[in-house]
Amino acid sequence: MFKKPRGTRDFTPEEMQKRKYVEECMRSTFGSFGYKEIQTPMFENLELFTAKSGEGIIQEIYSFMDKGGRDLALRPELTAPVMRFYVDKLQMEPKPLKLFYFGNCFRYDRPQKGRYREFRQAGCEIIGVDTPEAYAELIAMAYTLLKNVGLKNIKLNIGNLNILSSMFNVLNLPKDKQKCLVPLIDKSLSEDVLSALQDFGIKPQEATSFLEILQTTDIKKISGYIKSDQTALDELSKLEQILNLLRDSFDIKNYEVKISIVRGLDYYKGIVFEIDAPSLGAEKQLCGGGAYELISLFGGKETPTAGFAIGFDRTILALEAEEYQFPAPKIDVYVIPVNEDMTGKALEIARTLRERGISVDVDLLKRGIGKSLKYASSINAEKAIIVGLNELKEDSMTIRDMSSGEQKIVNINDYPLAGQRI
Amino acid sequence: MFKKPRGTRDFTPEEMQKRKYVEECMRSTFGSFGYKEIQTPMFENLELFTAKSGEGIIQEIYSFMDKGGRDLALRPELTAPVMRFYVDKLQMEPKPLKLFYFGNCFRYDRPQKGRYREFRQAGCEIIGVDTPEAYAELIAMAYTLLKNVGLKNIKLNIGNLNILSSMFNVLNLPKDKQKCLVPLIDKSLSEDVLSALQDFGIKPQEATSFLEILQTTDIKKISGYIKSDQTALDELSKLEQILNLLRDSFDIKNYEVKISIVRGLDYYKGIVFEIDAPSLGAEKQLCGGGAYELISLFGGKETPTAGFAIGFDRTILALEAEEYQFPAPKIDVYVIPVNEDMTGKALEIARTLRERGISVDVDLLKRGIGKSLKYASSINAEKAIIVGLNELKEDSMTIRDMSSGEQKIVNINDYPLAGQRI
Repeated sequence: MFKKPRGTRDFTPEEMQKRKYVEECMRSTFGSFGYKEIQTPMFENLELFTAKSGEGIIQEIYSFMDKGGRDLALRPELTAPVMRFYVDKLQMEPKPLKLFYFGNCFRYDRPQKGRYREFRQAGCEIIGVDTPEAYAELIAMAYTLLKNVGLKNIKLNIGNLNILSSMFNVLNLPKDKQKCLVPLIDKSLSEDVLSALQDFGIKPQEATSFLEILQTTDIKKISGYIKSDQTALDELSKLEQILNLLRDSFDIKNYEVKISIVRGLDYYKGIVFEIDAPSLGAEKQLCGGGAYELISLFGGKETPTAGFAIGFDRTILALEAEEYQFPAPKIDVYVIPVNEDMTGKALEIARTLRERGISVDVDLLKRGIGKSLKYASSINAEKAIIVGLNELKEDSMTIRDMSSGEQKIVNINDYPLAGQRI
Repeated sequence: MFKKPRGTRDFTPEEMQKRKYVEECMRSTFGSFGYKEIQTPMFENLELFTAKSGEGIIQEIYSFMDKGGRDLALRPELTAPVMRFYVDKLQMEPKPLKLFYFGNCFRYDRPQKGRYREFRQAGCEIIGVDTPEAYAELIAMAYTLLKNVGLKNIKLNIGNLNILSSMFNVLNLPKDKQKCLVPLIDKSLSEDVLSALQDFGIKPQEATSFLEILQTTDIKKISGYIKSDQTALDELSKLEQILNLLRDSFDIKNYEVKISIVRGLDYYKGIVFEIDAPSLGAEKQLCGGGAYELISLFGGKETPTAGFAIGFDRTILALEAEEYQFPAPKIDVYVIPVNEDMTGKALEIARTLRERGISVDVDLLKRGIGKSLKYASSINAEKAIIVGLNELKEDSMTIRDMSSGEQKIVNINDYPLAGQRI
């Protein structure tokens, strides 16, 4: 027997129903914010990803040489391909340009719960604007996307990399030491941050204040810590404006300032944010984004850019963890001919109903009413229509409500009446 | 500047609009026939495709070794993965099992119009039934899918491989010679078929009758040719039943019998069909399908199976060739604050309207009314809402119809009125 490759998944109709529901809900929310959908290829030239993330990424991705000797890679993420597309074809579009996309991505990773080798992402970019209003709208959209799919318990954290950078300057930490600290800060390993700072010769009291600011949600305290850095204070005031807009214009109140967000990626600049689903434990991050600079790296004219990515699979895991009631696969009507002579007529009735926008299945196995009703239940049919000779003489058919078992006789032309639920 | 890989495509918002329209239309038609959507991984173990199509296929596909030394391949088609999934997980589902799917596929092919290295397919399988009604419904669904997306000019041809096989027997042609003929028959190269038959020692008159039957649409003539083969005559009578059902129950009349359909694939058995868009010239085939046997090859319990694939990209090319009017990307409302102080309120109005199901964009660049109205036109906004201080005092806003230029003042809470088009 053949097996699917390790770390990949097949999706049953029930699972697809969930995925389609979440995707359509997200698509409609992106659309309601004026974002337009685009798509890029499943693989790219390998150098696109090494240019963005360094040669190290080759270890984590599916790369291969095609028959023409070109180095290709299954895309591990969607931002680099979208930026390539933008530089190649979309630079002349009116600004701001609001783009969104869905796509499968691939990482050669150890498979575990919430981490697959083939996974799906939703994402977006807004290009050509860097006002606080634009960032507030972007963050509000990420939050709304996850709320609209039905998640109840999500946590929004907002930081700013320029402020973090300014905090390093307060301690006079050189770049190489900052680099050692960043992964520890990213993982909220407070003890490790403290001991690393002491190893770097920082006084215990200074190290403690630094850690305190990393952990505070109080803007005043942050402001006091970086008071001698006017650029960072300006960034902090922009961050405050964004928070006020979220609260007043977007009615989003449960966010927290979190200066320790680093996104682990060195092309992010300024504002950064993350949305978690606490129900998911260690792999709880659903969404991450912020402002970044990539366009000039890919040969385009530098323009303000911000965006985010949402883990599609984790969003579904989070909904399942909250026991969200997804719509179940169902069919409106199952048509059953009472005997073989009625089969052609049953197919004709099915066609007519489909033309009226109803989903219809028909007994194609000629297996009789009892077995057919059982099958109709198994496919979650709402109604069964029984086509018999006597009724047909009068253009009628028997309609059975599959949940109540009630039956009535209805004229074919009257079914369903305009505006009536079937 | 980085380029996309050869033979792949980026899709702009305008192109995506077309693709989403076609996909949603097909999805809804599949659903109306009681088919349920599934999905399989983008790549499979290479042996899945060599088991189905032979080692030769390696030359035509993207195959590669992963870091664990496994031979993988980007899927060149969707039937083999779906059959693998069926054997692995779906064998116990109630029959008939009706499945459909969309997916990108990959071939290492010379790129040309209508042929890409990454292309999209729609497809379906019906498993566990082989009645004429089932085949008629399957063919009718393929035809309806293409009609429902808006194609006017399509051509449905139906054949049967058992009848073709019986015709070979009339000429006493051994298997190896049949194999030489099949590609010539497939490509309708009449002259080449004739001369090959003569090379095989078939008398000119016999060769001419054979060719005539290949080209006829007249069932009586076919029946006369294979009159001594009862199995083939039974198949022909089933074919006739299918044609009658198409005409009487499905109201599809413009089909033709075409015994020369071979589908070029040796796992097809019995009924086969193709749907062409004559407007597309050489690459005109939009859909191909029929009954086939693959389940036992993949280690499952053999069950009747039929299905078809539709070329998604070619369907769009055919619609474009017929100058089909696709829906244009648009946005309901563009909100413009008259000055910076109004920006927060503009965002709030946008949020409120989005919550009412309206798609809304907002001036995030604070660029004034003139430039904002120009931008609103560029994104195809239907209405512009202008938010000024005086109106706001009375909870009102100015609404401008972007096509007529008409303006009126409306209370925020009254917009849009229930049931009113915005």
